[in-house]
Parts: sequence; C-alpha cells; structure tokens
Amino acid sequence: MSNRPISLSQALASFDAVWSPHVVARVNDYDVRVAKVEGEHVWHAHADTDEFFLVLDGTLEISLREPAGERTVRLPRDSVFTVPRGTEHKPSAPTGATILMFEPTGTLSVGDRQENVPDHLDVTTGHALSSNEPGGEGGSDAP
Amino acid sequence: MSNRPISLSQALASFDAVWSPHVVARVNDYDVRVAKVEGEHVWHAHADTDEFFLVLDGTLEISLREPAGERTVRLPRDSVFTVPRGTEHKPSAPTGATILMFEPTGTLSVGDRQENVPDHLDVTTGHALSSNEPGGEGGSDAP
Repeated sequence: MSNRPISLSQALASFDAVWSPHVVARVNDYDVRVAKVEGEHVWHAHADTDEFFLVLDGTLEISLREPAGERTVRLPRDSVFTVPRGTEHKPSAPTGATILMFEPTGTLSVGDRQENVPDHLDVTTGHALSSNEPGGEGGSDAP
Repeated sequence: MSNRPISLSQALASFDAVWSPHVVARVNDYDVRVAKVEGEHVWHAHADTDEFFLVLDGTLEISLREPAGERTVRLPRDSVFTVPRGTEHKPSAPTGATILMFEPTGTLSVGDRQENVPDHLDVTTGHALSSNEPGGEGGSDAP
C-alpha cells in the first residue's frame, strides 16, 4: 500500500461503479475501503467479523435482522455504525451515498451467507485503486 | 458500545481536550477513536501495531523517522494515512485538526516507546463518550 497520504475524494473520483469497494489503506490485517452506493444491496451476514461504516456523504440505511425483530438504522453524513458479526443486514441508499468501511482483509462484500446476488452487485474483497493512483495526490510530503 | 449510529460531530462536541482520543465505535478488537488535536504530540512508536489516521477537518502533519531518514507527511482534510508498526512518529497540527483513528483496543496514545510526555498530553487507551452520549443522537431508527 501507499506510504503517502491518500485523498478519499480523489480515490472516489477514480471509479464510477456503485457497491464496488476500493481499498484505500491497510491497518495490520484490516482494510479501509471506500464505496459509492445507491439503491439496495442484499441481505447478508459475516459470521466471523463485525463491519464498520462511516458515511462520508449522503445517507446510508442499514436494515438489521436482530433477535428482537427487524429494524433499519439511518446514518446521515458524518455518522458511524458497527454491524455486529453474525447479524444479517442489508445496506441501502435510496438517494446515494459514499461510505468508508473498516473490516478484516479478505472480507467478502456480500458476506459468507447471502441472498441471491443481483447482477448490479460486485462480489469482491475490495478492489485496488487504479495504478495511476489518483488518490495518491491528496497529501504531500511537507517541504 | 452503542447499537445506534453515532454522529462524529456530536461526539467531538462532547469534549474539549486536545490529544485526548474518545472511542466512538468498536470493530472486533479494534477501536474507532476521534480526537481534537492542536500543536505537537511527542515522538513515539507502537511496536506491535499499525495506526490509521483520517483527517476529518483541518490539517494533520505526521513526522516519521524511517530507515531512509526523517520526513513529514501532510494530511489535509479528507486524507488517510497508516503509520507502520514500529515506526517512530510525531503527529502535529499547527493550526488544529480533528481526526479519526483505527487501532487495536488497548493501544496507548503515546505508544510503548516515547519521549518524555509533556503535561498537555493525555496518556490513555481512549476515553468513553460521556454517559449522556450526545453522539448517540446523530442517527436514528428509520420510521
């Protein structure tokens, strides 16, 4: 990974696909990923890991199937939320959002237990930023 | 930790101290911490873990002592950077900044190898948000 700062907005500007997380940093054996989202993802669960969301722009909703029933949390810009391991959840963003996620490297975007995955969803453990690294220009070595 | 969304700006508004990270979320055995920073921290290193920084507002500088010499990376708002484990580093923010960090729960703010810690710096593994949880109002269950 880069040993220089990465600008999240430039990283996000380097791709167009929605629900297609891109890895902007690694922390030990965890990824920091960013994604553009719009519409609905699928119900899925990660048996072995929590999944952290930070909303950079727009509003993200996450529906959760919990022992007490189903509920949907609404995350406006600047909100954080952790989906506990094993909890079935379905992210959605009716009007679009950009998000940052923190999860173990190798975590599949659709979990290890999911509904049928529609064509518009990317099944990935996170894409690398493109090789010309537009995200790499956001910060700089100080003079 | 909260099972509701947390607003980062409201969490940050709940305390005044600089260089005093507060835990806003947990992800497996990692903390998500936010801090207000201004002026200089101390040179320190974490032998066993990388440390991730996202600049929410303002500009953060991180000086690094690397095998090739010393350099300072400058992180404007919206930038991310990971300090590799074992690398001596000194964060500073001449004009102030607010930052978000990912690191293993229990990681000490001044590392496990550091200079003398001046009085203005908090030696902590991260404070809890206050019990009235002003950060807890940022998101909501959708209707």
